[in-house]
Amino acid sequence: MTRPGGRSARVREAVHRAVIELLAEGETTAGVPQIAERAGVNPTSVYRRWGSCASVLLDAAVARLSLTSPVPDTGSLRGDVEQWATAVERALADPDGAVLVRALITFIGTSADPIERLLSRGEDLEQMLTAAASRGEPAPNLQDLLDYVLAPMYLRVLLSRPIEPGLGVKLADRLLTAAGLPPASGQGG
Amino acid sequence: MTRPGGRSARVREAVHRAVIELLAEGETTAGVPQIAERAGVNPTSVYRRWGSCASVLLDAAVARLSLTSPVPDTGSLRGDVEQWATAVERALADPDGAVLVRALITFIGTSADPIERLLSRGEDLEQMLTAAASRGEPAPNLQDLLDYVLAPMYLRVLLSRPIEPGLGVKLADRLLTAAGLPPASGQGG
Repeated sequence: MTRPGGRSARVREAVHRAVIELLAEGETTAGVPQIAERAGVNPTSVYRRWGSCASVLLDAAVARLSLTSPVPDTGSLRGDVEQWATAVERALADPDGAVLVRALITFIGTSADPIERLLSRGEDLEQMLTAAASRGEPAPNLQDLLDYVLAPMYLRVLLSRPIEPGLGVKLADRLLTAAGLPPASGQGG
Repeated sequence: MTRPGGRSARVREAVHRAVIELLAEGETTAGVPQIAERAGVNPTSVYRRWGSCASVLLDAAVARLSLTSPVPDTGSLRGDVEQWATAVERALADPDGAVLVRALITFIGTSADPIERLLSRGEDLEQMLTAAASRGEPAPNLQDLLDYVLAPMYLRVLLSRPIEPGLGVKLADRLLTAAGLPPASGQGG
């Protein structure tokens, strides 16, 4: 007998893994039965828990994004933005991450649902910027963070161009310079 | 009797229009027969000229992009970048333009072919920047132009967020400020 929580978490992980694998193999139109078969679970369980394969995809993307790009709390705006940008850089340089971003974007084009899940992610980032402002740092707003740091990395994924190592820190520095933060000076990292 | 050039151009326009309409209606997996039927041309003509529906899509995207976003030559870097950014802003704010960008990105994910066509577009922009440098202006490189100006606009298309009027000029100004160009001062436009 396994505890429901443990089994539930394993099913979720298996289903996420299945959808990522299928996407990576070019199966961009895989349905719930195909995902369930690959995950070794009953299609009914997938329908009951997620409702549709679009919902599975979104759940996998958000879970992976949260896992690989946690919102940091280093105590300084520069530290936070550099750490977040580097985590995003790593997530997108990973082939699985790129596959998920691509699939997510295709899916967003056909539905309005995912925006809300993504916005909750935006709220976490907003808190990071608000905390910096409350420490008296010249914090940029969320849109600027996305424009300066996230957008150029997404562009590379979408055009199938490589993400050069260190790009995250470089883009973070652009944002912080534009926001009026003094340049980084030998503070390591 | 019509001249071959005239007829050929009309077929191309009809086929482009057909693929954009089908995409706008959500028919993201339309094949050559469906495109040909909508355009009122023989499928054989489409296969002979384009080879595949992916190729039709790419041709339509590049044609529309060139049409709505010509590479400018105003005589100043600021004028050129602002004019280009505003043209891109308009092309992407248009629903057809957004539909094409989305489809193009999905397609790039499954093929390496389109990159070359897009790169030829990049060469035009590179000439614009080289011309500025040869006039002694502090011109940014092509990657910076794409990162500062194009990427934030694409991000809005991909996340289905509105492109606010004036965004192009705002992003152009960020790029030019970072490149060390003096701020715009009442030079109109």
